Amino acid sequence: MPEHVVIIGSGPAGWAAAIYAARANLHPLVFEGAETEDNRIAGTLPLGQLNLTTEVENYPGFPAGHLQHFIRTAVAKDRVETYLEPLEEHAHAVTGPELMNLMRQQAENFGTRIITDDIVSVDLSRQPYKLTSLGGQTVQTHTVIIATGAKANYLGLASEERFKNRGVSACAVCDGALPRFRNKPLVVVGGGDTAVEEATYLSKYASTVHMLLRRDKFRASKVMEDRAKNNAKIKIHHFREVAEVLGDDKQGLTGVRVKNNQDGSTDDLSAGGLFLAIGHTPNTAFLEGQLELTPLGYIKFTTPQRTYTSKEGVFAAGDVADDYYRQAVTSAGTGCMAALDAERYLAAKGI
Amino acid sequence: MPEHVVIIGSGPAGWAAAIYAARANLHPLVFEGAETEDNRIAGTLPLGQLNLTTEVENYPGFPAGHLQHFIRTAVAKDRVETYLEPLEEHAHAVTGPELMNLMRQQAENFGTRIITDDIVSVDLSRQPYKLTSLGGQTVQTHTVIIATGAKANYLGLASEERFKNRGVSACAVCDGALPRFRNKPLVVVGGGDTAVEEATYLSKYASTVHMLLRRDKFRASKVMEDRAKNNAKIKIHHFREVAEVLGDDKQGLTGVRVKNNQDGSTDDLSAGGLFLAIGHTPNTAFLEGQLELTPLGYIKFTTPQRTYTSKEGVFAAGDVADDYYRQAVTSAGTGCMAALDAERYLAAKGI
Repeated sequence: MPEHVVIIGSGPAGWAAAIYAARANLHPLVFEGAETEDNRIAGTLPLGQLNLTTEVENYPGFPAGHLQHFIRTAVAKDRVETYLEPLEEHAHAVTGPELMNLMRQQAENFGTRIITDDIVSVDLSRQPYKLTSLGGQTVQTHTVIIATGAKANYLGLASEERFKNRGVSACAVCDGALPRFRNKPLVVVGGGDTAVEEATYLSKYASTVHMLLRRDKFRASKVMEDRAKNNAKIKIHHFREVAEVLGDDKQGLTGVRVKNNQDGSTDDLSAGGLFLAIGHTPNTAFLEGQLELTPLGYIKFTTPQRTYTSKEGVFAAGDVADDYYRQAVTSAGTGCMAALDAERYLAAKGI
Repeated sequence: MPEHVVIIGSGPAGWAAAIYAARANLHPLVFEGAETEDNRIAGTLPLGQLNLTTEVENYPGFPAGHLQHFIRTAVAKDRVETYLEPLEEHAHAVTGPELMNLMRQQAENFGTRIITDDIVSVDLSRQPYKLTSLGGQTVQTHTVIIATGAKANYLGLASEERFKNRGVSACAVCDGALPRFRNKPLVVVGGGDTAVEEATYLSKYASTVHMLLRRDKFRASKVMEDRAKNNAKIKIHHFREVAEVLGDDKQGLTGVRVKNNQDGSTDDLSAGGLFLAIGHTPNTAFLEGQLELTPLGYIKFTTPQRTYTSKEGVFAAGDVADDYYRQAVTSAGTGCMAALDAERYLAAKGI
């Protein structure tokens, strides 16, 4: 018998969809992705991009010290101090992996079934829809919620690949606080909001942050541009591209060869790290020809304020259909919406 | 000088907007509502409708036992049991008021200014916009995020008003577990999804749940209708309306006089409680003539997947613009979106 709803993806969108689908008695099945060397085949990142971050300060409901807050309400007044004292070092906000595992647990508590495998191809040409996993499993389903997210872009240089996790990163918030980057000059590539965010974040740790922009202008909003310009630690370089990542096996990355794209000249910057902030690619390769996508490859929503896609019974949630907000809470919001949309679709069909 | 952004409302949408606006350095000002006897003047319910609920099981990130989860990661392994033991009774999910206070705290941590007062009139005819509070305060602002929510509807009977909080309720989840409703027959008015949800919830406590529907059909989805029909404790009565709430000063509500709207006959049902589940009214009375509303009075979004309204610089979030999903996490999601929309609007205007 076909499944009622299959959810592909395991970030905030996927788990929010699972929580709501499970509470609606739809017995959802989640393909949470496979822990393979190269997840690019289908694209699902287990536990989503949040699993690659450290603290999450902006997911509503988790202020720093939230644990202390609960302790205060949970134990007798005269014992609060005893409890809080050893927890002081845990006064941080929730971390990305913690938050994702909490959502996963919540989905499981309500009866969600989870398969640690990835969907690599889909047949949406007729109903029930057919999904095939990396492990060779085939599943038929009345509805699908696609929550496969998006992945950070890299430059594609061999030297960049060589020093990944040894100085090259696509996530300042995940990696910026590591000892290897402290009090060193760092390089950020990109001119959008994210690039400014990353540069600002890194400026807390770095001696200097060099921002490399290909053009004469920022793509970032004015506020963000000003934020970069007003930060004494950030140096902005226009018309610059990365020609090569420099380093050796022992130290990893030690610098960046920078090309001036106006006159072709190059310059070597000494650096402790290179952070890419040049956009994301939605994980939709496995949907090509099956579902309407935007020119950038994101899933296209067909109805305002709903999660409907170009195929009935197929819903999208999270970053895979959002190149604009891309926040944990907006993804969780659309995940919830997709589950309710699926529930109402099934109800209307009498399934 | 005008404010950058004023947020009206203090449910998940309002706080999510505040968290994001504060982190974007917009120094948001939140009017969280006033604790007046009759909040209907403007409509802001302090801390939103969630503040009226008990446990919130479906806000992603808070499975039951989340506190235990954190304890396990926070204290040394050999001390975990000592810590967990007295917390066992706190193994519930987060409560509505807890969740709202956590979000409020998070917004405050990032520098949100909060005023315990309600906006009762707005002048959106020219910029900067002018807002006037119940307490007589006037504020000018470049952008406004409206997150005033919606309120439950009542029948409007004098006897209903008389027994409010003494047997009459519009929120089964808030009140259903109270001792006065245990093992008693209860009455639910309404035929939508919410009515079924409420009846199902109450069936855990009640001896019988009578659902009164005005028509021959449910408005609820098929799944929800089946849920009601398959619940042995729920009795469904079609073509029935409440003529009168019965009771006395000592016991409060004791029963409901039910009218058959086909033949006009009446019948007295003995009951311990009456639960209204006949929809919500968005808190938009103070916007009349200033902003485009839907026929049901909700704020109209003008652009797909954005929080723009008919006035530039005015954004809407949460239930005040949503008669469809109405969940904590969808409200938080649109709250975040509204703040990012306001940030980009101000940046584009160079403010």
